[in-house]
Amino acid sequence: MSRPLILISNDDGYYAKGINDLVEMVRDFGDILVVAPDGARSGASLSITSREPVRIRKISEKAGVQVYSCTGSPCDCVKIAFEKLIDGRPDLILAGINHGDNAAVNAHYSGTMAVATEGTLKRVPSIGFSSCKLEANADFSAMRPYVRSIVEDVLNTGLPKDVCLNVNFPALEEFKGMKICRMGTGDWVNEWDERIDPRGRSYFWLTGDFVGYDEEDESTDRGAMNSGYVAITPIQLDCTAYSAMEELRQKFGL
Amino acid sequence: MSRPLILISNDDGYYAKGINDLVEMVRDFGDILVVAPDGARSGASLSITSREPVRIRKISEKAGVQVYSCTGSPCDCVKIAFEKLIDGRPDLILAGINHGDNAAVNAHYSGTMAVATEGTLKRVPSIGFSSCKLEANADFSAMRPYVRSIVEDVLNTGLPKDVCLNVNFPALEEFKGMKICRMGTGDWVNEWDERIDPRGRSYFWLTGDFVGYDEEDESTDRGAMNSGYVAITPIQLDCTAYSAMEELRQKFGL
Repeated sequence: MSRPLILISNDDGYYAKGINDLVEMVRDFGDILVVAPDGARSGASLSITSREPVRIRKISEKAGVQVYSCTGSPCDCVKIAFEKLIDGRPDLILAGINHGDNAAVNAHYSGTMAVATEGTLKRVPSIGFSSCKLEANADFSAMRPYVRSIVEDVLNTGLPKDVCLNVNFPALEEFKGMKICRMGTGDWVNEWDERIDPRGRSYFWLTGDFVGYDEEDESTDRGAMNSGYVAITPIQLDCTAYSAMEELRQKFGL
Repeated sequence: MSRPLILISNDDGYYAKGINDLVEMVRDFGDILVVAPDGARSGASLSITSREPVRIRKISEKAGVQVYSCTGSPCDCVKIAFEKLIDGRPDLILAGINHGDNAAVNAHYSGTMAVATEGTLKRVPSIGFSSCKLEANADFSAMRPYVRSIVEDVLNTGLPKDVCLNVNFPALEEFKGMKICRMGTGDWVNEWDERIDPRGRSYFWLTGDFVGYDEEDESTDRGAMNSGYVAITPIQLDCTAYSAMEELRQKFGL
């Protein structure tokens, strides 16, 4: 039996500690192909590059691990790996480890989760891993047994159709276990830091504070993390608000 | 009673015909604030700008219509309008008219729908309008009565909580009516056009053909458009795959 092919990307760049740690955690499960951005793409969401060309560059190749950088978005990395670097299809797509969590509605902005979304669009089992540890040299070693257990399980038995996993780890050295969660709700406030440039014109840095609406609720991803659990949120591609359809038909007289 | 404030953005740029047509279609319903990108941002998804500053510039002001351009993404436009240009909150957020449809899973990549998603995150009723007409000088006039009817209805009675509308129009001069639809499924193939630059190095343009899996099914947005209907797909913020949670709990022994 041939070894599984695991495609790995992220939104922090191919050189980030998180992606290199992830490769080390799972490399004995299969052949690893890393195709990751050539620089930071945090907050890239599922953006695609259409107004400029995309290039790829081989960074390294050692036993069972090939690494390419890509000038495009995290989503572009998956797309170009599929068509230009892989003969056939990958068996699994992983994203991360992201330096910073992607829980609650922030999954929508995430380049890490974009990798998993694009993988799911291509009907490959896909998982995004993120940690609340932001530092460039963060120690992710406590995540290792959880990452390996989840990856091994999904390699063996797949995932429900059109569903990927958003796995978020609190900034702890020990976890209480795993919880299957729903996506928490919330919004950002104080989003802009206004400054004046040397020519007297104002410019704005995006920043802000996240206000979670249900962070005390352990059934949400952020709530579970706040209680010390690894939060596994299953995310589906289909965003149709089925429960609103009848109300809308009546509203519009249809 | 004060006039409603309608915030309008897009991903084709503030100067696009689509957004200017949309403003003309709805301007008698309220005061209009346009904050739109200073250039094309197709495929921007819900990306945010974090590694460079964002600037805004006032383009014009005439009776009841203020127009600003923004160097950021469609999502940034909504965020900066909220915090820096609006006193209070808008009553409605509109996106479009997009030159090109955003039906089926392509809503995930869309900058137009990012405007509606961000508006929904901020709990303002939000609607994205897109047309299958791609041309820069497209004639959108057949859409006018539908756009006005939907906007008037949503201004009067709002939308279900945490749900926005993705409204797609076929490239026709007359429509059979409106249908409330689900998001169609599909994927892209032949996504990269590989070329060789004058220095002999390869580069790739993102392109491709969309393969819809359920385009014959009138209950999907693309299926409804194929039959001549205006497709209204309600989109929810919460992407949790609730139906997969029990299976995953068993899978992971939780």
